[in-house]
Amino acid sequence: MSQQEPPAPASADTPVPEAEEGYALSPEEVYAVEEAVEAQDRDAVRRKLLELYPADQAALLEALSHADRAAAVQALGPDIHPETLTHLDSAVREEVIELLGPDLLARALSQLDSDDAVLVFADLDDEAQSRILARLPQAYRRLLVEGATFEEGTAGRLMQREVVAIPSAWTVGETIDFMRSAENLPDDFYDLYVVNPKHRPMGMVPLSRVLRARRPQKIVEIIDVERMKPVTVTTDQADVANLFRRYGLVSAPVVDDAGRLVGVITVDDVVDVIDEEAEDDLLKLGGVTETDLYRDVLETTRARLPWLAVNLLTAILASVVIGFFEDALAAVVALAVLMPIVASMGGNAGTQTLTIAVRGLAMKDLTAANAKRIVGKELIVGLVNGLVFAVVMGGIAWLWFERPEIGLIIGAAMVINLVAAALSGIVIPLTLERLKVDPAVASSVFLTTVTDVVGFFAFLGLATLFLL
Amino acid sequence: MSQQEPPAPASADTPVPEAEEGYALSPEEVYAVEEAVEAQDRDAVRRKLLELYPADQAALLEALSHADRAAAVQALGPDIHPETLTHLDSAVREEVIELLGPDLLARALSQLDSDDAVLVFADLDDEAQSRILARLPQAYRRLLVEGATFEEGTAGRLMQREVVAIPSAWTVGETIDFMRSAENLPDDFYDLYVVNPKHRPMGMVPLSRVLRARRPQKIVEIIDVERMKPVTVTTDQADVANLFRRYGLVSAPVVDDAGRLVGVITVDDVVDVIDEEAEDDLLKLGGVTETDLYRDVLETTRARLPWLAVNLLTAILASVVIGFFEDALAAVVALAVLMPIVASMGGNAGTQTLTIAVRGLAMKDLTAANAKRIVGKELIVGLVNGLVFAVVMGGIAWLWFERPEIGLIIGAAMVINLVAAALSGIVIPLTLERLKVDPAVASSVFLTTVTDVVGFFAFLGLATLFLL
Repeated sequence: MSQQEPPAPASADTPVPEAEEGYALSPEEVYAVEEAVEAQDRDAVRRKLLELYPADQAALLEALSHADRAAAVQALGPDIHPETLTHLDSAVREEVIELLGPDLLARALSQLDSDDAVLVFADLDDEAQSRILARLPQAYRRLLVEGATFEEGTAGRLMQREVVAIPSAWTVGETIDFMRSAENLPDDFYDLYVVNPKHRPMGMVPLSRVLRARRPQKIVEIIDVERMKPVTVTTDQADVANLFRRYGLVSAPVVDDAGRLVGVITVDDVVDVIDEEAEDDLLKLGGVTETDLYRDVLETTRARLPWLAVNLLTAILASVVIGFFEDALAAVVALAVLMPIVASMGGNAGTQTLTIAVRGLAMKDLTAANAKRIVGKELIVGLVNGLVFAVVMGGIAWLWFERPEIGLIIGAAMVINLVAAALSGIVIPLTLERLKVDPAVASSVFLTTVTDVVGFFAFLGLATLFLL
Repeated sequence: MSQQEPPAPASADTPVPEAEEGYALSPEEVYAVEEAVEAQDRDAVRRKLLELYPADQAALLEALSHADRAAAVQALGPDIHPETLTHLDSAVREEVIELLGPDLLARALSQLDSDDAVLVFADLDDEAQSRILARLPQAYRRLLVEGATFEEGTAGRLMQREVVAIPSAWTVGETIDFMRSAENLPDDFYDLYVVNPKHRPMGMVPLSRVLRARRPQKIVEIIDVERMKPVTVTTDQADVANLFRRYGLVSAPVVDDAGRLVGVITVDDVVDVIDEEAEDDLLKLGGVTETDLYRDVLETTRARLPWLAVNLLTAILASVVIGFFEDALAAVVALAVLMPIVASMGGNAGTQTLTIAVRGLAMKDLTAANAKRIVGKELIVGLVNGLVFAVVMGGIAWLWFERPEIGLIIGAAMVINLVAAALSGIVIPLTLERLKVDPAVASSVFLTTVTDVVGFFAFLGLATLFLL
């Protein structure tokens, strides 16, 4: 495999890497490992896993069954790539860590960048943490413990402690000499930070600028102040992502309470955050708290039950509303046949508005500055859609049951419910956001409650008024 | 504002930029511009807008009403930041481009990086495109026209043509000298590409490696072959994003059919792609095709109608199913009261599974290699949830209507529908994916059709069998 090759020799005929391979792990690679496990060919398992990049090693371990995974991790043993741990889904990671044992885990952690090591370490329980710490050198121990004290989802947790800080008095030449001789620099880095004597960041310098400057030039003369956007250790990771997104940053310095440079966040960390935040919104709107592809049946069921229980309550509430109109339902059975339509259309129209609103809030496109205008627009959209479907569905109901008054009633109920849906679709998330409740989590329950209750009430209520 | 300052002077007392400001545009900044527009103070409007970064200038223009936006763009005139155009939502961009006119637009495009310029240019209609081309120098014209020929959503469209390509015969010293003297390099760049005489990329070199190497060393001796992942101009942008995500890339070379280096994609472009793809899935699951915050009522209504029309069809289908059981409904009115509960619970449980499946497919976590196992798991989760809510809802129905047989019937229907929901929640997206239909778009219609039809059919069917 090409990724196992040593650096290419200096020849014009050197084969160049082919494009479009290895975007993701192929099912065949998974099958190959499964077969090797089946055949109890430990060496083949090990060899096949070692051919993979960390991300793919992780993806492969995730794709295996529990039993096969155990065999694969045992075959890898100390050769597991440390970075594989950071790529694993947390449920699978727990399993793999258990299989590795504290010695191998400590060894793997000590080979990771500080941010990656903290990611894995902070997830362990207290007992496992102390077992690991006992096996690590003092300096590294401090980094891990400190890193884990920052709350999950903050810049402090996200940052890498290895940062290239250059004193403001240096020249470009001194800076280059330092980078050539320094031992403990990150493997690859893209921006330098220039700090004042209090170790506060004054500006950043993209490496390309260092390369293109003359050696005697003062480093502060080529710093970029504008594009340096410091964040504090407590800044929320969603805010960090917004910052990178808005200003197209490649890295951002992290400062402590005193404004001292303590770490750096790079754009590849932010890619993970953006994935996480997007996933969060998507999953919450779908009524699940986290990806549970790799969790077992019991955990999955337990995680999904609460949401279904809440939904049961709202469904019962809707049934209670229907119960008010038993007389109408008993008298005109067509009402029972038609009534889910109004509620369903309301739920769908409301969900459209809600989705736009939740996304707009997450991306800071929907703010106090334009909320009123958007609410007004959604109301009109709801009214127009209501009128359109009132005519369509009214006509269908009339023809179906050969009673024009039923067509009129379902049409009127449709308008009422689609307007209510549009209004709730935008006002509910705005209100939750103002109350500091995550609109992605709670909005859809409230919304369907409104659209069910209003839908059934409007349709059956109008029917009771005009048909009985 | 700090971003307007010149580079800080070299002193220890230099004020350092404060953390935690400017993550996003504040509503106050919007109000200030609105007031200045109101007061017809063109200078103030201009001044306030010029204080902002391009991303914020764009966000502010987006937040304004149509009329205010026109006034703001007129006040800015030629001073609009070219990059602002790339940050604008496409509906708003269209408006702003119209307001700027072809001269100012051509001027702005010529100041952008090629990828950004193509982004704006490709969105124009044919007539507008030729008007712009006529105003641009020949070389630039070719870049735009070529860029626009790549399909939207491909690596070719995403890439930047400005790429630093180093012949494989060069030394580190020659490379550095070239970068110091070359005129047409990108402003900031992070990786170099080493090409063979056929201009095919052989490997990449992070700038930090160039800085830390000795001048006489051959550049090919420090190239990284492993971490260079070429993509072709036709590679789908979602695949590009997966590549960056899996391997933590900062840049990737883009090659043409002959394998020649033609451009580079950097991670900040990928951040936009990831946002776009995540938004796509979220919105499609919510039944909307794109963010329509900035579209007018008519366009918004037109975009949302088709989905609602499809939903109407499935709702009518469900009603037809209910219609089969008019006798049961006429005989036992409790059935009409309770029947939406089973359908609603099925819809929600199915949506949970569906959300996990759609996300898993997008992230390549759900593949042929583990599909069978996940389907099996979801079936058991559905069964367990079905049994739990069968007991709960069966009990409630029994107490409510004081008829144990109704409790038994709703319980049995609940089990049937939650199993059907789990099965459809995973099988529908898997099937659509295999048929190369985007599972995010179509899955939920099919799902709710199944859960409604099965829900009503099971509940009313069982009731007809056992109650009549």
